[in-house]
Amino acid sequence: MLAKLLGLRGDLHVDFIRSGALAGNALGDPSERPAAVYVPPNYDPEGSRRYPVLYVLHGYTGSVTGLLGARPWETNVFQWVDRLVAERRMQPAILVAVDGFTRLGGSQYVDSIHNGNYATYVVKDIVGHVDANYRTIAREGGRAVLGKSSGGFGAMHLVLEHPGIFGAFASHSGDSYFQYAHPISFPDVQRTLEKHQFDIAGFVDAFERKNKRGPAEYSTMEMLGYAAAYSPASNRAFDLDLPFDRKTGALRDDVFARWLAFDPAERVSGARDRLERLRLRYLDCGRRDEYGLDIGARVVTQRIRDLGLEVRHEEFDDDHRNVGYRYEVSLPALTAVLDTQ
Amino acid sequence: MLAKLLGLRGDLHVDFIRSGALAGNALGDPSERPAAVYVPPNYDPEGSRRYPVLYVLHGYTGSVTGLLGARPWETNVFQWVDRLVAERRMQPAILVAVDGFTRLGGSQYVDSIHNGNYATYVVKDIVGHVDANYRTIAREGGRAVLGKSSGGFGAMHLVLEHPGIFGAFASHSGDSYFQYAHPISFPDVQRTLEKHQFDIAGFVDAFERKNKRGPAEYSTMEMLGYAAAYSPASNRAFDLDLPFDRKTGALRDDVFARWLAFDPAERVSGARDRLERLRLRYLDCGRRDEYGLDIGARVVTQRIRDLGLEVRHEEFDDDHRNVGYRYEVSLPALTAVLDTQ
Amino acid sequence: MLAKLLGLRGDLHVDFIRSGALAGNALGDPSERPAAVYVPPNYDPEGSRRYPVLYVLHGYTGSVTGLLGARPWETNVFQWVDRLVAERRMQPAILVAVDGFTRLGGSQYVDSIHNGNYATYVVKDIVGHVDANYRTIAREGGRAVLGKSSGGFGAMHLVLEHPGIFGAFASHSGDSYFQYAHPISFPDVQRTLEKHQFDIAGFVDAFERKNKRGPAEYSTMEMLGYAAAYSPASNRAFDLDLPFDRKTGALRDDVFARWLAFDPAERVSGARDRLERLRLRYLDCGRRDEYGLDIGARVVTQRIRDLGLEVRHEEFDDDHRNVGYRYEVSLPALTAVLDTQ
Amino acid sequence: MLAKLLGLRGDLHVDFIRSGALAGNALGDPSERPAAVYVPPNYDPEGSRRYPVLYVLHGYTGSVTGLLGARPWETNVFQWVDRLVAERRMQPAILVAVDGFTRLGGSQYVDSIHNGNYATYVVKDIVGHVDANYRTIAREGGRAVLGKSSGGFGAMHLVLEHPGIFGAFASHSGDSYFQYAHPISFPDVQRTLEKHQFDIAGFVDAFERKNKRGPAEYSTMEMLGYAAAYSPASNRAFDLDLPFDRKTGALRDDVFARWLAFDPAERVSGARDRLERLRLRYLDCGRRDEYGLDIGARVVTQRIRDLGLEVRHEEFDDDHRNVGYRYEVSLPALTAVLDTQ
Repeated sequence: MLAKLLGLRGDLHVDFIRSGALAGNALGDPSERPAAVYVPPNYDPEGSRRYPVLYVLHGYTGSVTGLLGARPWETNVFQWVDRLVAERRMQPAILVAVDGFTRLGGSQYVDSIHNGNYATYVVKDIVGHVDANYRTIAREGGRAVLGKSSGGFGAMHLVLEHPGIFGAFASHSGDSYFQYAHPISFPDVQRTLEKHQFDIAGFVDAFERKNKRGPAEYSTMEMLGYAAAYSPASNRAFDLDLPFDRKTGALRDDVFARWLAFDPAERVSGARDRLERLRLRYLDCGRRDEYGLDIGARVVTQRIRDLGLEVRHEEFDDDHRNVGYRYEVSLPALTAVLDTQ
Repeated sequence: MLAKLLGLRGDLHVDFIRSGALAGNALGDPSERPAAVYVPPNYDPEGSRRYPVLYVLHGYTGSVTGLLGARPWETNVFQWVDRLVAERRMQPAILVAVDGFTRLGGSQYVDSIHNGNYATYVVKDIVGHVDANYRTIAREGGRAVLGKSSGGFGAMHLVLEHPGIFGAFASHSGDSYFQYAHPISFPDVQRTLEKHQFDIAGFVDAFERKNKRGPAEYSTMEMLGYAAAYSPASNRAFDLDLPFDRKTGALRDDVFARWLAFDPAERVSGARDRLERLRLRYLDCGRRDEYGLDIGARVVTQRIRDLGLEVRHEEFDDDHRNVGYRYEVSLPALTAVLDTQ
Repeated sequence: MLAKLLGLRGDLHVDFIRSGALAGNALGDPSERPAAVYVPPNYDPEGSRRYPVLYVLHGYTGSVTGLLGARPWETNVFQWVDRLVAERRMQPAILVAVDGFTRLGGSQYVDSIHNGNYATYVVKDIVGHVDANYRTIAREGGRAVLGKSSGGFGAMHLVLEHPGIFGAFASHSGDSYFQYAHPISFPDVQRTLEKHQFDIAGFVDAFERKNKRGPAEYSTMEMLGYAAAYSPASNRAFDLDLPFDRKTGALRDDVFARWLAFDPAERVSGARDRLERLRLRYLDCGRRDEYGLDIGARVVTQRIRDLGLEVRHEEFDDDHRNVGYRYEVSLPALTAVLDTQ
Repeated sequence: MLAKLLGLRGDLHVDFIRSGALAGNALGDPSERPAAVYVPPNYDPEGSRRYPVLYVLHGYTGSVTGLLGARPWETNVFQWVDRLVAERRMQPAILVAVDGFTRLGGSQYVDSIHNGNYATYVVKDIVGHVDANYRTIAREGGRAVLGKSSGGFGAMHLVLEHPGIFGAFASHSGDSYFQYAHPISFPDVQRTLEKHQFDIAGFVDAFERKNKRGPAEYSTMEMLGYAAAYSPASNRAFDLDLPFDRKTGALRDDVFARWLAFDPAERVSGARDRLERLRLRYLDCGRRDEYGLDIGARVVTQRIRDLGLEVRHEEFDDDHRNVGYRYEVSLPALTAVLDTQ
C-alpha cells in the first residue's frame, strides 16, 4: 500500500526492529524502531538473487515517518531509487531507511551514554535484521551508507567508527568543520536557556507543548541534540555538558574539544586505513550552505586527498534545504562500486 | 502498520477509490485516488455500532501522502483525532482524509471542466465509498467536513454547493475574501508567465523539472491552480482564463468576477437556507495570516450572522503556516453536534 | 560646506521657505520648510545665464534632510546631477529637492484639508521662491518634476493637477494602480489599529515614542499617511476616513473610490490635454517591485499611449528599494527636453 | 544651517581636518576629513567657560555625512545630546563626530600599514584640532569616547591603545569576542572572492560599480575592511592576509590570531592599568545581536570585573540595527564622570 501511495514499481516494507543498543536510554526514546525497506521490482524473497544494500540516514529532525511523506513536486529517496532502477541508470538494490530520531531531535548516529548507542544500533541491530530477513549481499562489499546533513555526518561517522561494515559512503551536505557549523548557534542557545534558568528538561518540556517554536528555540533544541551525542555528562536525562559558559556564553574549549573529536574534518587525517578500504568516498554540498558545510566538505576532501586517496567531491548552486535531488547522483555512484552478486 | 508508525491507538486504512467524477480530466491526473480512513479503537467492521464521519480536506499542495507524514514535534490530524478520543475529549468518530491534489497543485474541491469534478468526487465517490465500506452514520447529521486553507475553502464550498451531505463544517484559515487574498500574487504571476511567453504548459513543465523553485514560481503555480478551478477556458489542458491582462498585468474584472463567484464571502449572503440547516458553522484564522484570511473569516462570519444565524468564530495569534493544532478545537466541536448513533 | 561634504563641484544651498499653503495644518507640521537647491559649477547669481530647474520629490518617509545624507557606495541625487553635468552627459541645471514630510510620514504632494495643501505649496511657494531667488528659466518649458515612489506619484499628480507649471515629468517606481499597491496593506492596518481601539492619535503617539517599530506598524503609518492625503474626514487632526470597515477589515468601496480618484492609472485617460503639452512623459519601475508598481507603470503607459501620446517607459531588474541609480537616466532625459536659455 | 535642519538648539559645525596620520594611505582615501562638532546653546568661543568633549565613532559603513542624515522618527546623536542638555538630563558638552570611512567601508580606528593610522588620526589630529579650536577641557578627565558597533570597538581600542587621552568610554554593541562575530561570515567571503579569482582589487572595483549588492557581497567587503585593519600584508593596496585558506575556506589560525590580538575580549585581562584609570567603563548590547556581540559584551565585562574593576553593563531587547536610542543612556553617564570645568 505504501508502494502504491508513493507510486513505486518496487515494494516498500516497514519493519519494526527491537534494538538492544537503544534499550534503557536516558531520554526514554523507543528501542523498537521502524526501518523502511525498499526492494526492487521482481525481488523474490524465495529466489536466489541477492542485492546490495544502501542504508540511508535522515538528517536532524528527520525520521522514517518523515522520509515516507512525499512533498509536492519532489522525489523522495524511495522514489529516486525506484526511478533510477526503472530507467536502468543504476543496478537494482535494496534501500533501507534508518530511524535515528530522539526526543532532542536526532542522535547523530553516535554511541552516547545519554542517548543510547545509535552507531551500534545501525551497524548491529539494523544491518543484522536486514541481512537476516532480506536477500542481501551480506558483506562490506555489498553495503553502502549515505545521508544528508546529520545523515551525511552519520555516514562518515559509521565508516570511520566501524570499519568493515560498509564498502562506500556518500555525504550530502554532511556536518563537518564544526568550527563554522556550530558556534554560530551558541549565542541563541545561551540566550534561550538563560530564559529557562538552564533547566534543560524544562526547556524541552515547554518546547514540546508549544504550538509554534521560533528559530532560536529550534537552534537550541538542535544544539542540545548535538550535546547529547557529543558531550553528555552522564546517563541521566538532560545531563549534558554545554560547549559554552552558561553565564557569559563564551566558548568552553574543553567541551567543544569533545565535539571536535567527532568532526570528520578532524578525524579523517588519522584514519587512512579505514578510508582506504572504501570503494567510494563521496561528498557533495551546496555552495550556499547556511552552515558553511561546503567549506567542511572541501576540508574533508582535501584532507583525504592529502592521504593519497581519491574522493568524489561535487558542489552545486543551492543552500542546505531540500537537496534530495542529489540522490540522483549518489545512488548510482554508490551502487556502481558495490558487489552485485 | 501506518497506525503503528503514527503511534495511533485506532487504525488507519488507505483505500484507493476509483472516481467517475475525475475520469478523463484534462491534466491527466489519476482518477483512482487514495483516501485515508481512520477508525477509532474498538471499531468493529462486523459490529453494530455506527460512527459519525469527519471528512478532512488538505490545503493547496497537500495530498493524502502529505497528510500521513508526521512532522517532528507536531501532531497530525490522525494523531489529533486519536488522542482526543483517547482522552475522552470527543466522541469516537471515523475520520477520512481526501486527496485533492492536481498537476497544478490542487483542485479547490470544485467541479471544473478543466480539472475534473472534484466537488462531485468528494460528495459522491468518496462519501459513497466510505458509507459502503465502513460502519458510518450515513446521513447529513452524521457527517461533517473540515479543512485548512484551501481545504477550509473546500469545506465551505461543499456545504454551499451540495446541501444535505454534511451537517456541519469547520474552516481553518480558509480561503475567502478573494479581493485581499489573491490579487497580491498577480504581479508575480504576470512577470513569471511573461518570461515563459505565456506558455502555461511550458511553465508547468519547467516547474516540474526544476530541483528548486522560487517564491514567485510557487505563487504562479498556485494562481494557475485557482484559475483551473475558477476560470477554466475549456477542457483542453492549460487552457485557462487569467484574471489579469497579459500585457500590462492589470486586473481583468470579467475573469476575476468568475473567481469571486466562488468566494464564500460573496456567496453566504445568498445561501441562507443552505447555511441554516447546518448544526455548526465554524471558522477560525490566525490574526497574522499572510493572505488576510482573518479578514475573510470576519467577513464571512459577519455576513452569516447578518442572516440571523450563529457562527463559531475564533482568532488566534499566528500566521497561515502549520496551524494543525487548531484541530484540537474543531474536531470535538464538530463531533459534538453530529449524531452518534 | 554641504557641497564639500558631498564632494560636489557645484554648490548646494538650503533655503527655508515659509509656505502659506501649509499654514495652520491639522497635524501641526511646520509651514517653514527647507528646500535644497543645487546650482551647477560656474553658476553666477549676478550673471546673465539662466538654467532649467529640476524639482525632485522624495518618497514616503523621505525629507530634505534624508536626501542630504549620503549612503555608502551610493550616489545621491545631488551627486548624480553634479556628476552628469561634469561628465557632459547633461546640460547644466538647477536641481531643487522639496520637503514633503508630515507627522504621518508624507504628504503625497496633494492638497488636503487635513494635511495642508502640499500641491499648492510646491507649485506656488517653492517654485515661486526658486524663480525669485535663482537664475531660472521661469516658465513651463524650463521646469521638470520627478521623484521616486511617492515622489513619482507626486510628479504625475502635479502635472495632472497643475498644467502649465512643469514641461516634463519622470516617475521612478511611482505609486499607481492602487488596486494592487495598497489593499495588500489593509489587513495589517486593521489589525494594528484594532489593538489601539482605532484611536489614531494614540497609535501615532505610541509609534513616535517607540525605539523600534515593526513592519505592520510602518504599514499602518503609511496607510494613515495616504488616508490623510486621499480621504481626510475633516480638518481636525487624525480625523480620517479609512478605506476598510473597522470591524471586519473588508474594503469600503466608497472610501477607496476617493483614493482611486488620485490614482494616475485612473486619471490619465481623461487628461489628454494636460499630458499632451508635456515634452517628456517618463516612467520606469523595477520588475520585482514589491507593491506591483511595475504593473502600475505599464497600465499608466498603456493608457497614455492609447491617447496617441508617447511615453518613455523602462523596466529594470530590481525591487522597490534604493533605485536612485535611475537618476542617471532620468536627469539627462528631462534636461534634454527643457529650454536651456 | 545644519543645526536648523536638524532642529538643534545648539550649533553644529563641520570642520575639515588635514591628517598627517592618514597621508599616503594605500587605498587613496582622503587625508582631509570632515568632523562634525556640536556645541551646546550659549557656547561662546570667546567666553571663559570650557566644556568636556564626547568623541563619537560611527560604525562600519558609517561616515560623518551618514551621521548627519536624520532618519524619520529617529533621533540622531546630535539631536540626542541637544535634547538631553535642553532637558537638563546631562551637563552641557561638546560632541565631535569622527569620520573613519575607507574605501573598504571602515577603518576600525586602528593604525594599519595598509589603511593609514586611524587611531593616531583620532587621538592626535582630531583631538588636537578640537582642543585648538574649541573651548574644551583639554585633558583626559575632560574627554570620553563612544560609539556603536565598529565605533564601540574603536572606543575600546583607543582607551586600550592610547591611555591618557580619554577618561571614559562607552561601547554600544561593540565588536568583541571575534570568535563568534567574524567566522560566521568567512564562508561567504571565500565563496565570493573565489568567483573573483581572489582578485581583491577586482572585487572592490566591481562592488563599487554595481547598482545593488547582495548580502554576501556586503559581508565580503566588511571582512576585507577588517583584514585591512587587523591583518594587512603590506602597504600595497589590497595586499591583505585573509583569515582563511583560499582553496578550502578553512580557518587560518595564524592570521586569525592577528585579528584576535585586536579583540577587546582578548586584551582587557592584560590591561588592568589602562582600564583602572578610566572613570567609566560602559558596555551595552541588544540581547538579539546577530553577531553575538551581547556575548562579547558579557565576556569583556566579566574579564574586567575579574580585574577588580567596575563596569556598567546593560542589555536590552533588540538586535544590532538602529540602536541609537541607547545614546540616551550613555551620553549622560559619560558626561557625569567628566570634569565640567
